[in-house]
Amino acid sequence: MNNVAITGYGNTKFSQEEIPIESLMLEATKSLFDQNSNLNQKDIDAVLVTTNDNSKYLASILSEIAGIQPNAAHTVESLCNSGTNGIVSAYSYIASGLGDIALVVGAERRNSPGQILEWDKSRGEYKHPIFWGSIFTKSHKRKFGTTEEELAIVSAKNHKNARDNPFAYSDKVYSIDELMNSKILTEDLRVSDCSRPCSGASAVLLTSEKVASKFSETPVWIKGIGQKTLSAGFTKSQDFSSMASTIEASKIAFEMAKMNARDVDVAEIHDAFTVCELMAIEDLGFVEKGKGAQFVKTLYETEDRKINPRGGLIGAGHPLGATGIAQVIETTLQLQGKAEKRQIENARIGLIHNMSAAATSSTVLLLES
Amino acid sequence: MNNVAITGYGNTKFSQEEIPIESLMLEATKSLFDQNSNLNQKDIDAVLVTTNDNSKYLASILSEIAGIQPNAAHTVESLCNSGTNGIVSAYSYIASGLGDIALVVGAERRNSPGQILEWDKSRGEYKHPIFWGSIFTKSHKRKFGTTEEELAIVSAKNHKNARDNPFAYSDKVYSIDELMNSKILTEDLRVSDCSRPCSGASAVLLTSEKVASKFSETPVWIKGIGQKTLSAGFTKSQDFSSMASTIEASKIAFEMAKMNARDVDVAEIHDAFTVCELMAIEDLGFVEKGKGAQFVKTLYETEDRKINPRGGLIGAGHPLGATGIAQVIETTLQLQGKAEKRQIENARIGLIHNMSAAATSSTVLLLES
Repeated sequence: MNNVAITGYGNTKFSQEEIPIESLMLEATKSLFDQNSNLNQKDIDAVLVTTNDNSKYLASILSEIAGIQPNAAHTVESLCNSGTNGIVSAYSYIASGLGDIALVVGAERRNSPGQILEWDKSRGEYKHPIFWGSIFTKSHKRKFGTTEEELAIVSAKNHKNARDNPFAYSDKVYSIDELMNSKILTEDLRVSDCSRPCSGASAVLLTSEKVASKFSETPVWIKGIGQKTLSAGFTKSQDFSSMASTIEASKIAFEMAKMNARDVDVAEIHDAFTVCELMAIEDLGFVEKGKGAQFVKTLYETEDRKINPRGGLIGAGHPLGATGIAQVIETTLQLQGKAEKRQIENARIGLIHNMSAAATSSTVLLLES
Repeated sequence: MNNVAITGYGNTKFSQEEIPIESLMLEATKSLFDQNSNLNQKDIDAVLVTTNDNSKYLASILSEIAGIQPNAAHTVESLCNSGTNGIVSAYSYIASGLGDIALVVGAERRNSPGQILEWDKSRGEYKHPIFWGSIFTKSHKRKFGTTEEELAIVSAKNHKNARDNPFAYSDKVYSIDELMNSKILTEDLRVSDCSRPCSGASAVLLTSEKVASKFSETPVWIKGIGQKTLSAGFTKSQDFSSMASTIEASKIAFEMAKMNARDVDVAEIHDAFTVCELMAIEDLGFVEKGKGAQFVKTLYETEDRKINPRGGLIGAGHPLGATGIAQVIETTLQLQGKAEKRQIENARIGLIHNMSAAATSSTVLLLES
């Protein structure tokens, strides 16, 4: 199997503005090209777009407006983990030998159709993600005694980290008290517990080992890939206080990379809701089940950015198809020592956790510098 | 690189009925399982859905209703060549070593949003494919003296072939005279020159060499893959009487397979309009430019099914995301000697040509038994 590296990236700011999907894709792509003086449009073998947008043929549209004439070009969609599904597709394309260079661009408009789970006709009001978020939160509270304050700490930490991320939606720091008094949305969730839909785009360049050094002095390698889809409807899950697809995906990724959770220096976690960060930290094996809140409290108090250094979905915003790509970019920057104010010292191994629809499916990636 | 084989398939009938996308996907998948007694749901590593449908998370939805819990699962979209883009993705997934078994299901509803080229805001009325079909036809007529009768022969041949395809939309045979008097749609196109939107689905199983023999005594191997995207808008093309992306994609595929057009025993051609079959036959190198019509006339008169044995898009119907998959299934059946009344004697090498939006992008695949 060919080794595959991440050797380029570009981001737009995540915002609440209404921006055409084409403009978002192009801005992230242009930023990627601006940071790679050795990259020429004609080098690119594949262009993948990851999005929930209803527009068709977006990979060809991006190719045309960016002056690229790739071999492979298509859109990849899997709700909120569209981005990492695109990364895995591009990895496969290169590792299989079909090409050497792939551009993956995740983009979403604020009013993305992926935000409503229309496909589960049995849900009624439950088609809005906040309802599964509420059930997960209530379940974790019941089983592990998780408190409102512990949830607020996740939000406080991620907002604080986001302040040092120039592409983040939020630039405000909040006290625990402020967050614990934010608007109540359901019995178990406040507005500060929820990630926000955003307009935004993120682009990465994946390359074969053969050409990686042409585009980066510090390529970051994809060492582990784990994915698992257990269902589409979330009521198939047996236990709402853990995420079975995340547990399975992480096992696959750690086994492929011959690593375990103790090896991980920095992690991007899919905190669609505050409780998801606690559950994922537990389910990925960073701590025992039920110990996630204490772990995050320590990170917050010691200003340790190990989990969600760019601010997570809660602090940075959640433009669905772009999120997985933005997570990969942040991890790459950390492993290259280029994360500036957000930098974690001596980070060498990074983990990305990206999931969809009440964790009915999950992707876990392991990167190494 | 691992070799990848096609070792299973299932089709629905292509029809003008309104059928939910979930039902279409499931019916084709069930047919595939029914024909593979050795296949168990837990064997499947990846589920890809190829469609232009606006519904989200369809690969996870199909997985749940079919009882599959795959690792990778997502939707692939590239308008009319979504199907072959999905095949190439599944090939890559297996060839890269990430998994051994992938299910690719193409499905479309008759009223698919992929039928209107909404994305090209400069087109005006040209967003309807019939307008680029007209320009292609006029251009081929001017340059090569192609006649209305020659176009009618393509339609007559493909309708005739479709009569022996139990999954085809059309079951009628037409005389050249009847077709030359069918309803006029534009100056250069009659209704009989156009493929029809349909509801339909097709499913294929791709497997690694390691496990192929478990699922088929006669696996068919993917030997050549060529893809090319030149633009999104069709006015970027320099010459409307040939399809540059098809020429480039076929070069890549033939080079990878170490084959040329003379080696091909049977071909599935993307006859969105009658003129497209003539242009593709020329651009793929079966005959010199301008000689496509004479070639098809001979096929028709000698009842040779070499080109579009299942009836092409014109005879079988064109459920966008399913078309590329249905083309791969027909070629597989031909190379296995299982095409019944449509069987071409001693077919050993097959070609699939699948394209999008005025041939702004093309896929060419080469299969060998």
